[in-house]
Amino acid sequence: MNKTQLLACHDKIRPYIHRTPVLTSRLINAAVGAEVFFKCENFQRMGAYKMRGATHAILNLTPEERALGVVTHSSGNFAQALSLAAQILGVKAHIVMPSTAPEVKKKGVKEYKGIIYECEPTLEARNAMAGEIQEKTGATFLHPSNDINVILGQGTAALELLEDHPTLKAIFVPVGGGGLIAGTAVAASFMGENCEVIGTEPFEVDDAYRSLKSGKIESNPTTNTIADGLKTQLGSNTLPVLLKHVRTIVRVEEEEIIAAMRLIWERMKIIVEPSSAVALAGLYRDREKFKDQKIGIIISGGNVDLGNLPF
Amino acid sequence: MNKTQLLACHDKIRPYIHRTPVLTSRLINAAVGAEVFFKCENFQRMGAYKMRGATHAILNLTPEERALGVVTHSSGNFAQALSLAAQILGVKAHIVMPSTAPEVKKKGVKEYKGIIYECEPTLEARNAMAGEIQEKTGATFLHPSNDINVILGQGTAALELLEDHPTLKAIFVPVGGGGLIAGTAVAASFMGENCEVIGTEPFEVDDAYRSLKSGKIESNPTTNTIADGLKTQLGSNTLPVLLKHVRTIVRVEEEEIIAAMRLIWERMKIIVEPSSAVALAGLYRDREKFKDQKIGIIISGGNVDLGNLPF
Repeated sequence: MNKTQLLACHDKIRPYIHRTPVLTSRLINAAVGAEVFFKCENFQRMGAYKMRGATHAILNLTPEERALGVVTHSSGNFAQALSLAAQILGVKAHIVMPSTAPEVKKKGVKEYKGIIYECEPTLEARNAMAGEIQEKTGATFLHPSNDINVILGQGTAALELLEDHPTLKAIFVPVGGGGLIAGTAVAASFMGENCEVIGTEPFEVDDAYRSLKSGKIESNPTTNTIADGLKTQLGSNTLPVLLKHVRTIVRVEEEEIIAAMRLIWERMKIIVEPSSAVALAGLYRDREKFKDQKIGIIISGGNVDLGNLPF
Repeated sequence: MNKTQLLACHDKIRPYIHRTPVLTSRLINAAVGAEVFFKCENFQRMGAYKMRGATHAILNLTPEERALGVVTHSSGNFAQALSLAAQILGVKAHIVMPSTAPEVKKKGVKEYKGIIYECEPTLEARNAMAGEIQEKTGATFLHPSNDINVILGQGTAALELLEDHPTLKAIFVPVGGGGLIAGTAVAASFMGENCEVIGTEPFEVDDAYRSLKSGKIESNPTTNTIADGLKTQLGSNTLPVLLKHVRTIVRVEEEEIIAAMRLIWERMKIIVEPSSAVALAGLYRDREKFKDQKIGIIISGGNVDLGNLPF
C-alpha cells in the first residue's frame, strides 16, 4: 500500500461517501488536557466508516466480477456497509449473519437490499456458509477488515482528518479486525508529520495488544464487552501493518468505555457507538502523555440500539 | 423590533456564541418528501438556542446594572443559559428553580456558577421569590422568553439559517413561552423571501394554538407532555408578534414526538431533546402541504436526561 494507491482510492470513492465533519468540544478538551479533533464517521452513510472500505472493494472488481455479486460474513456495520455500497453500485450483496445477530442489524441490511443467510454463531459456520455461496453464485468474497482494498478505503478517514489538521501528534482509533487502524497507520505514515497511530481496545478483548507483543494473530477466548464492533481478531494483512507502524495499544475497562460514551453524548450531543468511545477512553487513560497536544480521534460509527443503552 | 436591531444583536453576541451547523438527511428528506434544513442549536453552547437570548440580554445592561447581577426563574435551559452567559460576562446570576426541577438541570446551573434558590413549583412562588431577590440584591430580572432582548437574541438562529439558505419556504419551530418563534418570525420577516414561520406544539399544551385563535394569552390547565420545554405560556411581548406574523400552529400527539425524536437520533446521529422533535413531528403531519419545498427546522436543544429516555 503506497501513497498513490491511497489517494487514488480516495478519488474513486469520493462520489459515494460523505466527507464527514471534524468536531471539537471545549469541555472535552478541558477534561483531557489536550486539543482533540473528532473525525465523525458516525455521520458517514449508513452510520460508520465501513462504508469507505466496502465501496472501494466493490469499485475494484471487474465488470464480470460485479455481475456475479459479492459475499461477506458480518454481524455488524460491514454487513450494512457492503449492502448499501452494493445497492448504490448495482451489485448483489450476499450477507452471512449469525442467527444471534440483533434484529436492528438485520433490519439495516434488509433496508439496503442485502440478501441475508443465517448461520450458527461460530467463525467456522460463517466461513463455511460464505464458501458455499461463493461456489453456488460465483460471488466475490470480501473480508470486513483483512481485504487490502477495504483497508485502503478505511484509511481515507484519517487522510481527510490529516488534510484538515495536518499537525496532529497522534490519532487514536479502536481496534477490532484491524482494518481501520491499518488504514489509519498507512494514511498517517504518508500524510502526517510524525503522527503516531495508537490503538485502543477493551481489556475484555485485548487480542491486538497481545498480537503486537507475540508477533502473531492472537484470539479472544471470551468477548464479554459492550464494544460489539471490537470482538474480532487481526488478520494476515492487518497484523503486518500493525507490527510495522503501531507501537502502542491502550486497553480500557468497560466502565471507562461507558463513561467516555456518556461524555460524548452529553457534551457533544452526538450519538456514537460504544466501540467509538473506546478511543476517547484510551486517550483519557493516557492523557498525561499527550498534554497540550493536538490529537485526532476517529469516531468509527453511531449505530446503536436505542432500546438497549448502558445508561 | 426592526432589522437594524436584529443585525446589531447578532454582531454583539457573535463572539460569545457558536455559529451552529445546518445539517440535512437524505433519509428524512425522503420520509417527509421535502428538502429539510436542520439548524442545530443542540450544538450551541450549553446545548440550546437560549444561550443567544441570555447573552444578548446581559450585554444590553448598563455597567451599573451588570454589577448588581441578574435574576430569572426557570427550571430548564434558560437557567443554564443565563448562568453560563453571566459567568462569561463576569456577572452574578441568581436562578430561582422549582424544588421539583430535575437534578441534572440543577447540576448544569451549578457548573456554570449560577446561584440556585429553590421554591415551590408554582408560578406565584417563582415570581415571589424572584421579586424578593430583586429587592434584596438590586439584580435585574430577565424573563426567559418575554424579554425583548431575549427575543431578538433567539431570532439570530433563524437569521443565520436564512443567511445560509435564503430561499426557505417555511421554518418550523417549537412554541413554549414564544421567545424562539417570535424571534424567528421577526428574522424571517426581514431576512426571508416570503418565508412562513410555523409553530408546533404538543396537543397536551396547546396554549399558543388557542391564544392565536382567541387573541389573548391562554394557559395550560395540565402539562402532561414529554416536551418539557414547551409547558409555559405566551407573554405580553411574544403574543403580539405571533398575532402579527404567525398564521399556523400545528399540534402533535405525544407518540408523534417520540417517533420524530427517534428518527432524528437514529438517522442523523444527533441528540435532540423532545421539544426539538416537536418541530419535525409538525412538519411530518403537514407534509402534503410542503411537498418538494425547502423547509427549515430549528433544533432548539439537546439537553436530555440519558437515564430517562422514552425508548
